[in-house]
Amino acid sequence: MMRIDIITCLPKLLDSFFAQSILKRAQDKQLVEVHVHDLRDFSPFKHRQVDDYAFGGGAGMVLMPEPIDLCIQKLKAERKYDAVVYMTPDGEKFDQKKANSFSLLKNIILLCGHYKGVDERIRQHLITHEWTIGDYVLSGGELAAAVVSDAIIRLIPGVLSDETSALTDSFQDDLLAPPVFTRPAEYKGWKVPDVLLSGHEAEIEKWRTEQALERTKVRRPDLYNKHFSEEG
Amino acid sequence: MMRIDIITCLPKLLDSFFAQSILKRAQDKQLVEVHVHDLRDFSPFKHRQVDDYAFGGGAGMVLMPEPIDLCIQKLKAERKYDAVVYMTPDGEKFDQKKANSFSLLKNIILLCGHYKGVDERIRQHLITHEWTIGDYVLSGGELAAAVVSDAIIRLIPGVLSDETSALTDSFQDDLLAPPVFTRPAEYKGWKVPDVLLSGHEAEIEKWRTEQALERTKVRRPDLYNKHFSEEG
Repeated sequence: MMRIDIITCLPKLLDSFFAQSILKRAQDKQLVEVHVHDLRDFSPFKHRQVDDYAFGGGAGMVLMPEPIDLCIQKLKAERKYDAVVYMTPDGEKFDQKKANSFSLLKNIILLCGHYKGVDERIRQHLITHEWTIGDYVLSGGELAAAVVSDAIIRLIPGVLSDETSALTDSFQDDLLAPPVFTRPAEYKGWKVPDVLLSGHEAEIEKWRTEQALERTKVRRPDLYNKHFSEEG
Repeated sequence: MMRIDIITCLPKLLDSFFAQSILKRAQDKQLVEVHVHDLRDFSPFKHRQVDDYAFGGGAGMVLMPEPIDLCIQKLKAERKYDAVVYMTPDGEKFDQKKANSFSLLKNIILLCGHYKGVDERIRQHLITHEWTIGDYVLSGGELAAAVVSDAIIRLIPGVLSDETSALTDSFQDDLLAPPVFTRPAEYKGWKVPDVLLSGHEAEIEKWRTEQALERTKVRRPDLYNKHFSEEG
């Protein structure tokens, strides 16, 4: 069973997320354990302090090294970790390939930054991977940790009710997914393409492949080129 | 005041997120209103059904057009919307520039996909923007909508306690942020760079600029080139 430990100074932010949907189901089925740790529980300071002003001045608070170090130490004493990931806007881009490879790991720590981030010494000495989920700044790493957890957990065999579902997702073969339609066949004069109602499996497959290629070519030429260069 | 309407078939997933941290503060200060709408409340079908099998077969469910249309119709009858955004892995990349420009809008709808996504006709007829938060697949658009909301809301003047804080974030000038350090000056033999303890403001500023440039050059040559091409 995979285990994900999330370290944060705002544990409540993640409450409803892991209590719902496939992440709840995955935990109920004992396919994954997610533990959220409150950084303040590891503060040796008054008022459970975990952040302080930046040396050298400037706006924004910085997460202090000691509470993070104490929390990671405690976890590492209990089991071996495959990765200690820090979620940060200046990290490597998290993508489907990273999700695929991490879905095979056993124990992962995700450290959430907040405010201006964590003290650089934690990054230098304790972190094995630094990831960003995209080129934008969030108020903390909590949502990023939730995104990474979701992307990874849904790939664990048995989590999705229909396993083939994840394999036909966008990105798994560097192609975007084709358009999808469901009932009714006509709504306000808007019609479903005839081929999808035809029952001809081969025709439908052909249409979907064409649509996926066309959509990728128009929307994501970078992926389109990658798809063909990796096939060739 | 900005207003964000989020349409989802899993509203509970977002509960704790908007009840915490800066997003709660922004709402308490009446700088933003966030309304989460349960798609099932707009289902005209038995058992509040909102999804069905894909025409043409294949794994995964598709969100039906009618409940989404009815929900968007109701909202549009109440006020004018600047944007109706669909969160989808095959959308345009959401980035800091989009966050900046959307932070100036008044009324925004964010539609969350789930399962295999929404019926294509909704995308063709009702959606004005399609965004992805990164090259990975999530079990739904809810986390993506939370990410977009967070990135936008924190830019609204008055939301962050110190306004200059957002301006020194990564990406605002196509540079990553420099390393940050806080107390203690020495921890387990790990030391803070002398310059940050020196009190020489000009020296500190110079060090931070050098570090930001160096870090961007090494980690994100794409941004580094953009920074200099836009300056020149």
